[in-house]
Amino acid sequence: MSTEDQLGGYNRLASILAWLLLLLASATSSLRAETGDAAWLRYSPIDAKIAQERYADIPAVVVPLGESEIIRSSCDELVWGVRGMLGQTLRIESKPPKESFILLGTYDLVKKEIPTFEKTPDLAIDGFWLKSIQFEGRNCLVITAPDDRGVLYGVFTLLRKICLGQAIASLNEQHQPFAPLRVVNQHDRLDGTLSGGELPGSIFWENGHVAKDLSRARDFARLLASVGINGVSVNHPGAGPRLVTAPYLDELSKVAKVLRPWGIRLYIAINSTSPPRSAGGQRSRDKLVNSNDLDAGDAWKGLVDEIYRNIPDLGGLVLHADWGGYLEGPERGPEHAAAINAIAAALAPHSGVLFCRTCRCQVHVDIADAMADPAKAAYDLFQPLDGQFADNVILQIKQGPMDFQVREPPSPLFGALEKTNQAVELQITQQYLGQQRHLCFLVPMWKDVLEFNMHASEGETPVKQLVGGKTFKRQRGGFVAVSNLGRSNNWLGHDLALANVYGFGRIAWDPNLSSKAIAEEWTRLSFGHDPLVVGALVDMLLKSWRIYESYTGPLGAGSLTDMAGMHYGPGIESADSNVWAPWHSATASGVGKDRTTATGSGFIAQYRPRVAEQFESLETCPDALVLFMHHVPYSHTLDSGKTVIQHIYDVHYEGARDAARLVQQWQSLNGRIDDKRYEAVLSRLNYQAGHAKVWRDAVCNWFLQKSGIADNDGRVGNYANRFEAETLSLEGYAPLNVTPWETASGGQCAECIDPSGKGALSMKFEGKAGWFQIDVAYFDENDGASRLCLRIAGQVVDEWTAEDSLPDNKPNGHTSTRHQTARIALRPGDEIRIEATTDGGERAAIDYLEIEPASG
Amino acid sequence: MSTEDQLGGYNRLASILAWLLLLLASATSSLRAETGDAAWLRYSPIDAKIAQERYADIPAVVVPLGESEIIRSSCDELVWGVRGMLGQTLRIESKPPKESFILLGTYDLVKKEIPTFEKTPDLAIDGFWLKSIQFEGRNCLVITAPDDRGVLYGVFTLLRKICLGQAIASLNEQHQPFAPLRVVNQHDRLDGTLSGGELPGSIFWENGHVAKDLSRARDFARLLASVGINGVSVNHPGAGPRLVTAPYLDELSKVAKVLRPWGIRLYIAINSTSPPRSAGGQRSRDKLVNSNDLDAGDAWKGLVDEIYRNIPDLGGLVLHADWGGYLEGPERGPEHAAAINAIAAALAPHSGVLFCRTCRCQVHVDIADAMADPAKAAYDLFQPLDGQFADNVILQIKQGPMDFQVREPPSPLFGALEKTNQAVELQITQQYLGQQRHLCFLVPMWKDVLEFNMHASEGETPVKQLVGGKTFKRQRGGFVAVSNLGRSNNWLGHDLALANVYGFGRIAWDPNLSSKAIAEEWTRLSFGHDPLVVGALVDMLLKSWRIYESYTGPLGAGSLTDMAGMHYGPGIESADSNVWAPWHSATASGVGKDRTTATGSGFIAQYRPRVAEQFESLETCPDALVLFMHHVPYSHTLDSGKTVIQHIYDVHYEGARDAARLVQQWQSLNGRIDDKRYEAVLSRLNYQAGHAKVWRDAVCNWFLQKSGIADNDGRVGNYANRFEAETLSLEGYAPLNVTPWETASGGQCAECIDPSGKGALSMKFEGKAGWFQIDVAYFDENDGASRLCLRIAGQVVDEWTAEDSLPDNKPNGHTSTRHQTARIALRPGDEIRIEATTDGGERAAIDYLEIEPASG
Repeated sequence: MSTEDQLGGYNRLASILAWLLLLLASATSSLRAETGDAAWLRYSPIDAKIAQERYADIPAVVVPLGESEIIRSSCDELVWGVRGMLGQTLRIESKPPKESFILLGTYDLVKKEIPTFEKTPDLAIDGFWLKSIQFEGRNCLVITAPDDRGVLYGVFTLLRKICLGQAIASLNEQHQPFAPLRVVNQHDRLDGTLSGGELPGSIFWENGHVAKDLSRARDFARLLASVGINGVSVNHPGAGPRLVTAPYLDELSKVAKVLRPWGIRLYIAINSTSPPRSAGGQRSRDKLVNSNDLDAGDAWKGLVDEIYRNIPDLGGLVLHADWGGYLEGPERGPEHAAAINAIAAALAPHSGVLFCRTCRCQVHVDIADAMADPAKAAYDLFQPLDGQFADNVILQIKQGPMDFQVREPPSPLFGALEKTNQAVELQITQQYLGQQRHLCFLVPMWKDVLEFNMHASEGETPVKQLVGGKTFKRQRGGFVAVSNLGRSNNWLGHDLALANVYGFGRIAWDPNLSSKAIAEEWTRLSFGHDPLVVGALVDMLLKSWRIYESYTGPLGAGSLTDMAGMHYGPGIESADSNVWAPWHSATASGVGKDRTTATGSGFIAQYRPRVAEQFESLETCPDALVLFMHHVPYSHTLDSGKTVIQHIYDVHYEGARDAARLVQQWQSLNGRIDDKRYEAVLSRLNYQAGHAKVWRDAVCNWFLQKSGIADNDGRVGNYANRFEAETLSLEGYAPLNVTPWETASGGQCAECIDPSGKGALSMKFEGKAGWFQIDVAYFDENDGASRLCLRIAGQVVDEWTAEDSLPDNKPNGHTSTRHQTARIALRPGDEIRIEATTDGGERAAIDYLEIEPASG
Repeated sequence: MSTEDQLGGYNRLASILAWLLLLLASATSSLRAETGDAAWLRYSPIDAKIAQERYADIPAVVVPLGESEIIRSSCDELVWGVRGMLGQTLRIESKPPKESFILLGTYDLVKKEIPTFEKTPDLAIDGFWLKSIQFEGRNCLVITAPDDRGVLYGVFTLLRKICLGQAIASLNEQHQPFAPLRVVNQHDRLDGTLSGGELPGSIFWENGHVAKDLSRARDFARLLASVGINGVSVNHPGAGPRLVTAPYLDELSKVAKVLRPWGIRLYIAINSTSPPRSAGGQRSRDKLVNSNDLDAGDAWKGLVDEIYRNIPDLGGLVLHADWGGYLEGPERGPEHAAAINAIAAALAPHSGVLFCRTCRCQVHVDIADAMADPAKAAYDLFQPLDGQFADNVILQIKQGPMDFQVREPPSPLFGALEKTNQAVELQITQQYLGQQRHLCFLVPMWKDVLEFNMHASEGETPVKQLVGGKTFKRQRGGFVAVSNLGRSNNWLGHDLALANVYGFGRIAWDPNLSSKAIAEEWTRLSFGHDPLVVGALVDMLLKSWRIYESYTGPLGAGSLTDMAGMHYGPGIESADSNVWAPWHSATASGVGKDRTTATGSGFIAQYRPRVAEQFESLETCPDALVLFMHHVPYSHTLDSGKTVIQHIYDVHYEGARDAARLVQQWQSLNGRIDDKRYEAVLSRLNYQAGHAKVWRDAVCNWFLQKSGIADNDGRVGNYANRFEAETLSLEGYAPLNVTPWETASGGQCAECIDPSGKGALSMKFEGKAGWFQIDVAYFDENDGASRLCLRIAGQVVDEWTAEDSLPDNKPNGHTSTRHQTARIALRPGDEIRIEATTDGGERAAIDYLEIEPASG
């Protein structure tokens, strides 16, 4: 007596539901068991009173129409979400029942089931309609759309409404996306490592092949689908030619299969090392992009056809061309457009598109040439080709002309293309923005760029309008994010960093949403509705980018980090003196890269005149970008009335102070959010507060040395409570010069050199008796886990292990870390002693001790 | 430049402090990271306002006097506790400093350091004095005592005061224990299993030897020391003769070493299988206790001397004599006393004592003999020997005459010994009281016994006075608990069960404390001061024993469990019909064991006359014990006006209802306590609520069948919403008779018999449409982890695994478990289907489905 027949394909739901229910088991036992991996799709029980008031009458039955995998996902998600939030399990039925119900399906199928259903609206693909109707005397909530994916988005939207406590009794809402393409690029390497944010563990790749267990890839797809992302590339473009050969295409088809039920199309990233075989079976690297001969075109056609045989719904290709990095010969001109169009032509019959990245991050320039400026490269290369690209080519333009610095102007290329599809490339990975170790909510930064009026035409032409295709009526365009979700805890290692993933999806769907609205939505979905939690967390998120900027990259000078290396800790010298480019161009007399038309690289001339005028003049150029556009003396006075050099000092002290306040703000939420996320975030924020001081001191001292101008407040270089490790009594320790010098206090640290691996530093306390806190600044490398022990007058008062996984194996700004021991009673004559045991290659290098009267 | 010399032995603190600080690392990062293992010694940060108001002036220095290990523990504990709660690290100094300080030491050493210290009070051993004084113009808080252990207890008391927020600025408090011996018996087997409560993992033994890592034993000692326990035996008495041979004595000395810094003396448990070698090298089992020849005495002397050479501070021996279990021949009379005295004589020169257990749990009686009554055994054997025991012998008497039933009268032996030391034996393990799966706070039960006036002499002679040696001026006496702390999560597998360990220690120190006071102290120390948490948790604890009693053992009939087996789930028949004894003696006409002098076993005559009179008369015998003392017809009317049979029915329904309310009460605390303990306790309470229904139905149906008298309310045997598994459509399933019959609804279940290990049960729902909750009653054996899946009309609505570790591998009252699926929409005609996949020996046996309208 099985009812399986009558339910048709829904028997297959069993395995999916089993998975859902496993997760649910813990969810129903308590709303406080958080894994972090659920991100904003927790579906924890909502307030009982609100549930009773607003959702008591929710239909008991859901009727999904049609057999598509996306409709199945939609239906499962609805059942799961309602079960989690309201505690009841909806019935899945194949026909409208004799009671109220929720109907899921495309227009056509809804019309077939309910012929009286009113005229359907004219929605863009992926748009949807939530519409309450009466059907044969019963309440029916219709979730319908032009395509299956829209129905899925409608379900996620309905669930979001319930989670946010919004009424759903009588709905008539139409939603549609701002732009058709909303894509995420994961630059995962085939060996399983991630690129960009330096987090561990690809969810797609391991040991050169697609991961055997793709369950986490499935969760990833679901997360992205919930905010309307409809495409994903999952490989680093350097994967090479093997990726587009038969065995790999078979593997990639498994990834596509996991993404498909969530309406996400797979894209494949390629570069100049992944050309097709020519007709004769020979590879020709040159033929990838700089040749328009028919042979190459034919080869692309054969290859692309083969890809589509494996993955019929492939979204397309993402071309990372490495212009100048690998390609020799002529770089400009119509040949490039033709070569790109040859690939596009192969994709066109399959409705595939070609994203063509315009960044030139591999450009080496002659630093002595004032006109040489990597910021100019994308425009120089592509602006002349405007109008020459096929309709299914989209130029994918990084938000700024450089490389995801903490502050850049919008790329001038956005304003320069009238007959070419374009998409903005944003970065979720925080590559230069603290790599998920520092809190940095990116939506306000993205909004700055997207709202920037490029004056590309009459009226307002903000970047969002241009990439949305609104200004010049382009059919294809949108939003691309480089992301690095992986196997870390909570996907990114920092629970609050998930707000950037959510924020990207929401802003790609509707760039008119405010940063605050997005932050608040995410907070409520992720942490519930406690007003104190919402208030504090939204505030923390909204100010976090400005705080990070204030201690890492002032006035548009760029991120003052190790530009040719890990892009993480401070490295002011290396932020400029490297082969890629001049960046901040600091000299003894001034700072900033002169990009003016009059005296500089001429970059500013790439903007439309009204924008160029604003940047060209020191008077009108915003201070936030002044060092990006101009080289100014340190004594230049900003709008605030401060000199540039004093601003640099002040803002770094303010930033370090504000980073410390984030810790306190978070601590005020103790007990109001689940323990696991509370602990994890607290640990990150504490680390950030310490590293902000490392940044502050490195930047301030470097500029003090460079400029020779003292801090008005006498802070920089004067650390009354600081005791340099290299000046203490050393046992088994020796001084070491740190490179770059500015990343260690006084340019030096002390490292353990005793062959036994044991050593100690000590000093005599000569201050007045009292309660103190002692900060030990040390270098926590990734090549060992040293043990450190702090003794006062012989008594052990603290012990810890240097076992964070920071991105370097040397003492420098990446690895510099502070550990605080709170409220220690010191008396004159006390010996303060640090004992160390080294581990692996890590020599327990110590920078200094800072001894300050205890707070609180 | 080390100050180690001036600090003397405190360098050794490093390793201890390192351990403390490791724990502390998590404690300081948040007050909400709970492991459960910290129990009531969490030392989490106290409210900042209270810290400022009451403890801002706490001295920064602690001065420990002397070199003893216990003083070192005291000092470390103080440093750790203050650091955890107040965030500051006290300085350990060896001399009074020129500032305020805390002084730790015995009277003698304090006097030596501060000659002006006033006359010291006359405190019993283990007592202590917290005294604020002025010393050379400085504030000094003296924690002093006659012995080191008292100082340790003083430190724990001071820390408890801080944790409870009590003032410590001007103290003058003397505390001393009610009785000198406060001992815990762990019956751990040498193979590492625990006896009594059936929990996993001894912390003392593994693979026949003392555990290599005794760090948890150290934590155990610290926990017990914090509530004043001063002795521990760590082995099951059945360990046999090898335990007292050289290799094992060496191992035991390692345990003693771990206990020693916490003032806890080791005891060794022995029984008739561990006799000493005689002078000629031969073992003589008989000579253990039933011979007083000199040979045995000499042998004991040699053996005991050898033990003390290994463990100079051994507390003594605990003799578990297995009277009647193993010993043949004469069981009574002066020979016994002499044999026991021979052991005691060997201990006396070492100041060791001999606890002699009086229980006769191995007695087999002739069930047909009305006079045969195991309740009489202890008195019969020992009362005649009163006055014949050496001064260092203590008779260790179980609280009741039987074996830790849910309700027993006090053992008459307490009132019968005037010239013999006695101690009360209580049980922490919940052997018959839910084995840490059911919540059962035991202090109210213990208090019932301890406050019971035995009328042993003029005036009030409650049990506590007798075991405290107060009534008959005995020097030795006290409190012993059988416990089973082990490697389970949180020591006992149920966070709230730790209240029993705490409660035993507190009541052994001061039996005048009320149950409520102890419950509140423990709650505040373990869960903080949130008034809602304290209110709810204290209420839950205080009523939990009565709730457990109400569904497991009515009116003193004893625990209606599998008496000869696991002592866990319901087993009403086997609670009586077993070789050990008649227990509840239920017949078709009546129930209860007649122990009257007039018509029964005569047990009541063992009480002093005033007590015996009360129990002898049905009029005056309290209803709570009526079935322990009398055999009455089912129609007997209780004080409540109810008949016995109706009382049995009603109280079981009330108990099951109240167990379910515990879940709700706990859920009201969600968000107010740490997630980890919240989740763990919720899981246990949910299980308990289900198992309480299993108990209810088993007991009620058994008595319905036995008595033939229907429930006035028509509940018993009528389950309108219940669908027996054996009556459903079975696929790969077959009916199975369950033993004992009363532990399955209808006496049967259905088990999966298909060789594939897959099977299903199904039924058609014929009720009215609505929201329902479905309970599946199944048997979760410990020999497999079956998977169960619930489908409604083909749709999977729940899945779970039967993987609890309940104490049996068969379907019966131990393994019967209920799983609830909440808020499912059912419609007439729906197929309700359970699909199972068996695992190991577990055949996914299912008892019934209960389908009820959804609540809430």
